[in-house]
Amino acid sequence: MLAETAYGKSSVRLVKVSRHGDRHDLKDLTVAIRFEGDYDQSYTDGDNRDVLPTDTMKNTVYALAAGSSVEEPEAFGVVLARHFLDRNPRLRRVRIDLTEQPWGRIAIGTREHGQAFVRQGAESRSATLQGERDRITVGAGVRDLVILKSSHSAFAGFLRDEYTTLPDASDRILATAMTATWRYRTTDLDFNLTWHAVRNTMLEAFAEHDSQSVQHTLHVMGRAVLDSVDAVSAVRLVMPNKHHLPVDLSRLGLENRNEIFVPTDEPYGLIEATLTR
Amino acid sequence: MLAETAYGKSSVRLVKVSRHGDRHDLKDLTVAIRFEGDYDQSYTDGDNRDVLPTDTMKNTVYALAAGSSVEEPEAFGVVLARHFLDRNPRLRRVRIDLTEQPWGRIAIGTREHGQAFVRQGAESRSATLQGERDRITVGAGVRDLVILKSSHSAFAGFLRDEYTTLPDASDRILATAMTATWRYRTTDLDFNLTWHAVRNTMLEAFAEHDSQSVQHTLHVMGRAVLDSVDAVSAVRLVMPNKHHLPVDLSRLGLENRNEIFVPTDEPYGLIEATLTR
Amino acid sequence: MLAETAYGKSSVRLVKVSRHGDRHDLKDLTVAIRFEGDYDQSYTDGDNRDVLPTDTMKNTVYALAAGSSVEEPEAFGVVLARHFLDRNPRLRRVRIDLTEQPWGRIAIGTREHGQAFVRQGAESRSATLQGERDRITVGAGVRDLVILKSSHSAFAGFLRDEYTTLPDASDRILATAMTATWRYRTTDLDFNLTWHAVRNTMLEAFAEHDSQSVQHTLHVMGRAVLDSVDAVSAVRLVMPNKHHLPVDLSRLGLENRNEIFVPTDEPYGLIEATLTR
Amino acid sequence: MLAETAYGKSSVRLVKVSRHGDRHDLKDLTVAIRFEGDYDQSYTDGDNRDVLPTDTMKNTVYALAAGSSVEEPEAFGVVLARHFLDRNPRLRRVRIDLTEQPWGRIAIGTREHGQAFVRQGAESRSATLQGERDRITVGAGVRDLVILKSSHSAFAGFLRDEYTTLPDASDRILATAMTATWRYRTTDLDFNLTWHAVRNTMLEAFAEHDSQSVQHTLHVMGRAVLDSVDAVSAVRLVMPNKHHLPVDLSRLGLENRNEIFVPTDEPYGLIEATLTR
Repeated sequence: MLAETAYGKSSVRLVKVSRHGDRHDLKDLTVAIRFEGDYDQSYTDGDNRDVLPTDTMKNTVYALAAGSSVEEPEAFGVVLARHFLDRNPRLRRVRIDLTEQPWGRIAIGTREHGQAFVRQGAESRSATLQGERDRITVGAGVRDLVILKSSHSAFAGFLRDEYTTLPDASDRILATAMTATWRYRTTDLDFNLTWHAVRNTMLEAFAEHDSQSVQHTLHVMGRAVLDSVDAVSAVRLVMPNKHHLPVDLSRLGLENRNEIFVPTDEPYGLIEATLTR
Repeated sequence: MLAETAYGKSSVRLVKVSRHGDRHDLKDLTVAIRFEGDYDQSYTDGDNRDVLPTDTMKNTVYALAAGSSVEEPEAFGVVLARHFLDRNPRLRRVRIDLTEQPWGRIAIGTREHGQAFVRQGAESRSATLQGERDRITVGAGVRDLVILKSSHSAFAGFLRDEYTTLPDASDRILATAMTATWRYRTTDLDFNLTWHAVRNTMLEAFAEHDSQSVQHTLHVMGRAVLDSVDAVSAVRLVMPNKHHLPVDLSRLGLENRNEIFVPTDEPYGLIEATLTR
Repeated sequence: MLAETAYGKSSVRLVKVSRHGDRHDLKDLTVAIRFEGDYDQSYTDGDNRDVLPTDTMKNTVYALAAGSSVEEPEAFGVVLARHFLDRNPRLRRVRIDLTEQPWGRIAIGTREHGQAFVRQGAESRSATLQGERDRITVGAGVRDLVILKSSHSAFAGFLRDEYTTLPDASDRILATAMTATWRYRTTDLDFNLTWHAVRNTMLEAFAEHDSQSVQHTLHVMGRAVLDSVDAVSAVRLVMPNKHHLPVDLSRLGLENRNEIFVPTDEPYGLIEATLTR
Repeated sequence: MLAETAYGKSSVRLVKVSRHGDRHDLKDLTVAIRFEGDYDQSYTDGDNRDVLPTDTMKNTVYALAAGSSVEEPEAFGVVLARHFLDRNPRLRRVRIDLTEQPWGRIAIGTREHGQAFVRQGAESRSATLQGERDRITVGAGVRDLVILKSSHSAFAGFLRDEYTTLPDASDRILATAMTATWRYRTTDLDFNLTWHAVRNTMLEAFAEHDSQSVQHTLHVMGRAVLDSVDAVSAVRLVMPNKHHLPVDLSRLGLENRNEIFVPTDEPYGLIEATLTR
């Protein structure tokens, strides 16, 4: 028996330059398309008659990008989802994932240059569309938002067993490379404005809060989003704990006044949750 | 409302050397542990009293590795899962993921050296344990098994629309970096032997088969596993299509007799399915 | 015969938090140390008596970071270089490489938070110290500065042979992930201020210039640095050409008005040069 | 003043399938080309008239691969180097770097399949050609050969200062991801045979030797190559020390009988040397 079949195209790279006189806009997207539907015959019999090639999916991204705005990744995703649903009767569900690589303008003194750009941030913006016959669900997100608190972070009073060696920490560094995704109630929204509102809300909650654990911080950040941004119906946060271990300088005859840390990549804690209304 | 919460430790690196006189065995594993359970209070109130620190999970891996065999990743995973379920009443489900980095012995002429090793393969072996109060499910897999057919691979007769430019191909290169995962019916099995049987079955099916598409090949490989290895109850295959495009030499005044290809990383097709009995 | 020997420690990760009341400063560095000297006996005879362990080099980074400012990576590098030269008579030349991962402060409305930070940029800042008995040379740099011009970039009038298929381009996208390194005349300098001056100078030159090729742009950027920043005695630029290819939409029945591009990672052009006074 | 200029094309991906009836040969190479010569005008004046586009370099790889054997990367590199030197009078020195990704044949029982392949090894084979008007120098190498000794490895009796905390080790794990490069005396050689001879010689020396340090092992391996393989005139080895730290189980109430290790990626020691005759 065949189950959970899907096929599509990933890592379709697209840069669109929109020219408004001397001022150009630059949009840099990576698109993935995933079809679920009645395609079992292609698996079982090698019969391709109903299979839209993934190469055509790629071409479609470029064709529709030429005729549509890509200014809002979410809106461009809706255009793609509708196109595929309209043309492919065997398609039951289409998923469109878009990742935006952020660019800023190069500054010439206090002026922004209209046609020269510099990549910004290690983080990227994501949008996810789930399209079915009767509805399209829009989601957005941020990936690899690396944030750190040098104060107001503790982890203490936890469960101990015979293998527990971790001491209580009342003043530790908290750092994470957060990935957050959220779902919108509607497809009719100022997606760019709302995205920035969600991101800012999470950053402020992270900064202002007294953290008792990664779990605690995650909840405060997710709750702040639901409290502040009406358009969001649910938010999921995934927070790897990027441990910063205080260096034991006593072996070197010195004191570490909570100043010198070694950040480590492995192993790492991983904390996840979804908050819904 | 809080949903889909989980927390754990990832990328716990472990090398165990077992000494049998002059002949040592080397096992190189990366372990991830993931707890799901009644831990909402840690999120909502910052109350850690029921939270086993992820640092303790890491220590537990090393402690149990010292007292148990790690020769079979699946069996070591069962030991870990049982340990955590036994000690943590609030734990509803524990997931243990193990990845084995493969090593071979260095050859001295025709003899294998007992204490010197060389890393083998880009691929890695995986094992996944899902433990709940009343049962533990064991799965295994292979990640990034890179395989290529230079013959008996076609893709033709597919659906065409106004954006289709791909020509029919009767003799193309088929290549993928396959990830396969499968579930066992039982926890009582020769896991090492069975893993090799599944891997060989997939490789032989891939090599011997006349491919009409990636979907078609995926199905043949999955079916071969279910047909040949009784202990497997379901198998999932994820196959990125690592496109090898024939170079257009006609622009250089030359002919390409299906010999010269450029492998590309992006974009790539992505085909997935699960086969169950 | 033994030649070009060197040994040292790489990827020493260091985060230092300096506390000034409510306002913390965060510095995130990765340090590499490389010794060249009279250590042949350790290679030929396995005699370690003169070998300072690389583990001690790592400890030294943390010990000196506790007692010195790390606010300027270049100045901290001088401290490290002098320390090692003073204590190790067999050391002929020491090289210290420092990479700074940039962090900014999280904004709360228009106010900067004193103790919460967000990672900025994909680029990183580098510093390189070459220390010998009689002098220390200081260099600095920027790695992976990703920049793009959507106008004023051409590549035409080049050499053609029988394998040339590239058409002249009068208006193409120019993009690169530049790595620049430069040498200072002195160790007595405001390193942070000067680093920003060099970076800004390069960005402005890139933005304002009419590019005839990557080579041409590289030269203009390097020359601008030598013209504007007296303290720099030489600058080296390495510029991979991150090709953005216009998509051929004519096969899809559409016109590409120089708007739709596919960025590609491989193959890539690679252009390098050093400019000295 | 302009110095150390170079330009070229990197990451040119090439797969060639050679068909001998039912048995195909597969060669998977990545090629980089680097020109040094009298190209200053392209930098200073944006004058491209003498610049062979890097796109043409890429085309040339495919054109020459169609007409030449690529069975030996070194020999194919010589063909490329000669081609560029013959046609480009301003070219003073050309460097060709080739990296081979290794593939093996899929086994069907004890038979090798003629047209189905599986990627082998994390390591890759390299070849480097330095071509000038009057001569071409051929080199070869292996990259990321990951090897480990679980016995006969010590590090003791080293220099100590106030920051030394490392204890003497009489029986530690030694592991490295070695990169070795060597130069041949001649361009007239069975390159495939010789490459395997060098690799085997290094592996055997590594396995059989009593290591007092990474430096010591590096020297023994390099010396074995010069002693065993006449065609090699010099060999360079770069050996990152992939530390495997014994886990301190005493804090968990257990004893570590030199069995349980945590491999770490950072920081790492880095040891290098060249051996010449």
